[in-house]
Amino acid sequence: MKEPLHLFKIGGAVLEDDKELEETLGFFSNLPGRKLLIHGGGRRASRMSRQLGIEPRMHEGRRITDTDTLEVVVMVYAGLENKKVVSMLQALGCNAIGLSGPDGNVILADKRPVKDIDYGYVGDVKAVNTRSLAALLEAGMTPVLCAITHDGKGQLLNTNADTIAAELAIALAGQYQANLYYCFEKPGVMTDIDNMDSVIRYLDPELYAAYREQGVIAEGMIPKLDNAFRALKAGAASVQVGDRRALALGEATQLVWTTEFPE
Amino acid sequence: MKEPLHLFKIGGAVLEDDKELEETLGFFSNLPGRKLLIHGGGRRASRMSRQLGIEPRMHEGRRITDTDTLEVVVMVYAGLENKKVVSMLQALGCNAIGLSGPDGNVILADKRPVKDIDYGYVGDVKAVNTRSLAALLEAGMTPVLCAITHDGKGQLLNTNADTIAAELAIALAGQYQANLYYCFEKPGVMTDIDNMDSVIRYLDPELYAAYREQGVIAEGMIPKLDNAFRALKAGAASVQVGDRRALALGEATQLVWTTEFPE
Repeated sequence: MKEPLHLFKIGGAVLEDDKELEETLGFFSNLPGRKLLIHGGGRRASRMSRQLGIEPRMHEGRRITDTDTLEVVVMVYAGLENKKVVSMLQALGCNAIGLSGPDGNVILADKRPVKDIDYGYVGDVKAVNTRSLAALLEAGMTPVLCAITHDGKGQLLNTNADTIAAELAIALAGQYQANLYYCFEKPGVMTDIDNMDSVIRYLDPELYAAYREQGVIAEGMIPKLDNAFRALKAGAASVQVGDRRALALGEATQLVWTTEFPE
Repeated sequence: MKEPLHLFKIGGAVLEDDKELEETLGFFSNLPGRKLLIHGGGRRASRMSRQLGIEPRMHEGRRITDTDTLEVVVMVYAGLENKKVVSMLQALGCNAIGLSGPDGNVILADKRPVKDIDYGYVGDVKAVNTRSLAALLEAGMTPVLCAITHDGKGQLLNTNADTIAAELAIALAGQYQANLYYCFEKPGVMTDIDNMDSVIRYLDPELYAAYREQGVIAEGMIPKLDNAFRALKAGAASVQVGDRRALALGEATQLVWTTEFPE
């Protein structure tokens, strides 16, 4: 029987709201046993970018990362946001340790090849160093990962935080019972973005495909759900998507493989 | 017999010069056995501060750290500079792991009380968590520490990197044979700043006091040397001050307790 591990990804809106962040970290720090947190920080990075006179450029929701933009995301993700989260968790009695990809070589990535579009210093995850992560987890520490990776040759790279969460769950599923949580500002995956009661309780690949085709699921949710299903398929024990309250109450969207729902 | 540990502090000028930084990290990564690195980043922080419209304010060489300035130093030290150094060390085959005070709770500090001057969010080191650091060292990792600490209640603090280096050497001297190196842009402590041949080979407290009184040692060296002597007095096995070349050749200034020099 593998030990459970909670992998908790928090999104940009949660990071932006101090009270919500505190509540969310409070919930996270009370999860029993081994856990790790993954965070983004894109909104703050865009603001910092503008403050420094660099207009953020996005393509299909992904940041085009030139040299100056890479410095901004490294500063904001690995500096500002990561240390804020770590110091708040320490105050909650959780022995957090902030990491980016080069730290302990935890996430190695390849610079994305230029095809139709040059994303610049964007990295696709190549390898997760489960040995380093397990060493920290088994020493009683709680890794807090930001979305910065490296290529092993001294180059830092910008990687999507949802993708990192999925890759970590997949890599660590060999050793742990990996439970993945995507914690964001909505109570779950919704069929009607304006109706809080429209949360899809259980989502299987068939239903997901149908909803996608019908355009029922918001465009912005697609990459997150693709990552989430990929993690579930590759060995994650459970994947849930929702806000802190829904996750705490077990009312968030749960990804499943069958259409035979447990209730 | 305690295992040796090399504690290597690199200063701002080394961080500013890419070639010098690469050479210095190459030298550091070749030091045998357990090691850790401490870095500053004040020059870059001052530039970033100005870019964001915040004029840096210093008092006796120490940065006055208001809320906005704290964000800048956290971004630059824990983000930009720390991840740059860590990714470069990884490329050199050294399994570096970047840390600030809250990470693994390695350095706890108290906000400096306001006396004649309010330094703002500046922290005086209260405790070094040798257990966390030893766990990383014994797992084959090389901690890379920046000069950000925390108060354990969620507040990040700005602390002088020379002081952190001394405090780490003192705390870890109980468990390791702690060899402390202050690597900066000069070949050593000099009696004449314009004469490269004026390096003081051995410096003991008596000679230091005499040189201070005569105004022979540059003003800016005093806090560094005070820290260095404090570390030596409190158990560091050796303390050397100089540039990479002088340190490599054993020609840097060595702090000693007696006036009976070994040559």
